[in-house]
Amino acid sequence: MNVTVTAVDVHDVRFPTAAAGDGSDAINRGDYSATYVELHTDAGVTGAGFTFTNGRGNEITCAAVRALAHHVTGRTVAEIFADPVAFWRSLTADVQLRWLGPEKGVIHMATGALVNAVWDLRAKLAGKPMWRLLAELPTDELVASVDFRHITDALTPDEAGAILDKGLVGLDDRLAALTRDGFPSYTTSVGWLGYPDDKVRALTRAAYAQGWRAMKMKVGGAPADDLRRARIIRSEIGPDALLMMDANQVWDVDEAITNMAALAEVDPYWIEEPTHADDILGHARIARAVTDLTGGRCRVATGEVAANRVIFKQLLQAEAIGVMQIDACRVGGVNEVLAEILLAAKFGVPVCPHAGGVGLCEYVQHLAVFDHLRVGTSLDGRMVEYVDHLHEHFTDPVRTRHGRYLLPEAPGYSATMKPESIATYRFPDGPVWR
Amino acid sequence: MNVTVTAVDVHDVRFPTAAAGDGSDAINRGDYSATYVELHTDAGVTGAGFTFTNGRGNEITCAAVRALAHHVTGRTVAEIFADPVAFWRSLTADVQLRWLGPEKGVIHMATGALVNAVWDLRAKLAGKPMWRLLAELPTDELVASVDFRHITDALTPDEAGAILDKGLVGLDDRLAALTRDGFPSYTTSVGWLGYPDDKVRALTRAAYAQGWRAMKMKVGGAPADDLRRARIIRSEIGPDALLMMDANQVWDVDEAITNMAALAEVDPYWIEEPTHADDILGHARIARAVTDLTGGRCRVATGEVAANRVIFKQLLQAEAIGVMQIDACRVGGVNEVLAEILLAAKFGVPVCPHAGGVGLCEYVQHLAVFDHLRVGTSLDGRMVEYVDHLHEHFTDPVRTRHGRYLLPEAPGYSATMKPESIATYRFPDGPVWR
Repeated sequence: MNVTVTAVDVHDVRFPTAAAGDGSDAINRGDYSATYVELHTDAGVTGAGFTFTNGRGNEITCAAVRALAHHVTGRTVAEIFADPVAFWRSLTADVQLRWLGPEKGVIHMATGALVNAVWDLRAKLAGKPMWRLLAELPTDELVASVDFRHITDALTPDEAGAILDKGLVGLDDRLAALTRDGFPSYTTSVGWLGYPDDKVRALTRAAYAQGWRAMKMKVGGAPADDLRRARIIRSEIGPDALLMMDANQVWDVDEAITNMAALAEVDPYWIEEPTHADDILGHARIARAVTDLTGGRCRVATGEVAANRVIFKQLLQAEAIGVMQIDACRVGGVNEVLAEILLAAKFGVPVCPHAGGVGLCEYVQHLAVFDHLRVGTSLDGRMVEYVDHLHEHFTDPVRTRHGRYLLPEAPGYSATMKPESIATYRFPDGPVWR
Repeated sequence: MNVTVTAVDVHDVRFPTAAAGDGSDAINRGDYSATYVELHTDAGVTGAGFTFTNGRGNEITCAAVRALAHHVTGRTVAEIFADPVAFWRSLTADVQLRWLGPEKGVIHMATGALVNAVWDLRAKLAGKPMWRLLAELPTDELVASVDFRHITDALTPDEAGAILDKGLVGLDDRLAALTRDGFPSYTTSVGWLGYPDDKVRALTRAAYAQGWRAMKMKVGGAPADDLRRARIIRSEIGPDALLMMDANQVWDVDEAITNMAALAEVDPYWIEEPTHADDILGHARIARAVTDLTGGRCRVATGEVAANRVIFKQLLQAEAIGVMQIDACRVGGVNEVLAEILLAAKFGVPVCPHAGGVGLCEYVQHLAVFDHLRVGTSLDGRMVEYVDHLHEHFTDPVRTRHGRYLLPEAPGYSATMKPESIATYRFPDGPVWR
């Protein structure tokens, strides 16, 4: 732990995904990109972290990481973890930068990249995959990693400690089961808006044959198109498999309710991002309406652009979500994800992490496994999103079998990109972009 | 209107205010800065706009303006205003940048700088100050300037139109009164956290002598210090003048309620930013508690870091605020401020714009005057914040008399900085920073 961060490197890495329509949804398009951070140390080990963006957006998050990097440079891992909240606040409450948020958007994503790199470094030094490092930490240290400011009205440190202590019971059995079976997941690769109907059908059929029994499609196009595509998928997967829908925030509140009344026909399991990500009261109204429309079979999911723990706190307090989709890159890194996982447990809502993009699957598998081992303790309703994109650029890529994630084994947070991928895809000087 | 934007210049302008403790509060410190945008045109007129930041934060917002500037370059003013929502969405829904928000933080502040510069350009071309340009626009054109997406559950275009039509009644009388008397304001210059007690007392006494009858102090330090400073101010201003308090988000929800129970002794008129800016449900709980504590004399105010119209919509729906503090730079410029002013009118909550920083007073005076002339129509509870900082750098600075803003007369949005100020304070090459 007595290792010093000697320098922080930031790379603007972009993959030319836009042309294929991969990853296209109702509001986001562009080349999947990563603001990739390397923490160089005097011990030769390098901490890796990143945030996920879209094309030109990467320039801005890179600038934000550079503005924050001095909080990490020159510090030892021991110092940082001796007072994790003080470290976290040095980034989130930087007196010159907090005005740009607070705790949201560009500045918070950049915070996440740095914070995650610090955790990756620690896990590598400990010789453990992140999920194991977290699952084996004493309750006191996990609690001390969370900034409870602004969430004590929903979760106190004592309540968090009690949840984590309780999570020690049966942990070995849960770990044995995960090691044997892997962690449940679902696929989003079948129904991007950019795909024609026959491609949707073929991909659905192939995914079903590979063992997937939960699939997500994008909605938010013309309502008739959404329903037609949904019927195709439902006809391919039969009545028992789960069909999730993702509107990526394009609907107004009343529009979401109207559209879900039509889409209820195909028995959706959840409607994700039915309206603006900041609209807690709107999500709560939609949740009540969708519950009424489907007799409780369909729930509201959101979180991939929920800005921080304060937004998640309210979504839970307002009973606005039945599925909580944390994002490993959106919020302020592992420390804030811990807060969110604990909040979800307090309110009894399952966490199904958002993944896809660049490296999100690599990150969130660790978080989901930790959640199951130490916090949530049940697999009921738990699934990690899976998208089959860009894993080949990571040194420790996700591995799946029969629609389940296998436990990562390499030390660290699986965030390390291959040097040749960085060199090839770096913007604007990599050969792909020149 | 057939004027083309030929180039967009962005300047990183910073004023060395940190050393003096000016502008220090519970969470923000740094050199007051502006990401200053110039729209050069083929007509020789230059549109000016900016967003306000703190020191190093300016680098990031400058990067964001550069990433968005191509949506403005090459366009004519006529084109932009022919379909204002399409223009606004070209910025806020840029498919490569929306992921960085959506509609919040860095990316939205950069949007605001560009959008405001476009409106400044239009007002200059029309030869009118912004408030007059807006107040004289036909209802249809004002309604067409607002993006109602995600707020139709609280305010429809028809409702907005009815409010604006009604605002035509008595407009001439209101304008005559404002021209004669100016617009009410309050001062925040007396009680920054960085100031010692004797300075607070002397500034309060001086402000009272100058005619101010509403003053705001910062709270959120040690509770005993907050109360001692509050007593000093109350003892200087007597029982009738208004004393407002601003906690800049440092409190948790229950902490805010506890601290306001103690501070109620000095009869505060409002408590501003009592907790995290994103905490709509928290503000609602605090509002109910403060109403109970003070028999309704004290209200909750917030808005200077409310990210967008969706947050304001919910603050109003939840009855969380009794005073709405719009910020001209935080949100996506004039178009979104129009939405917010109309929402406030729908819910019957007075708008008291946030000002201070760099140029915020210059901006918001126009918005408050427009609000009064065309939307709110009453001065009851309306005040514009006033801070006596940095006005000398603008070509059309605010003018006050007896604690009231005098109506701006020059064409434009009062956003134009003096060329010599830009040259002197530009970071890092201006003589002040070299």
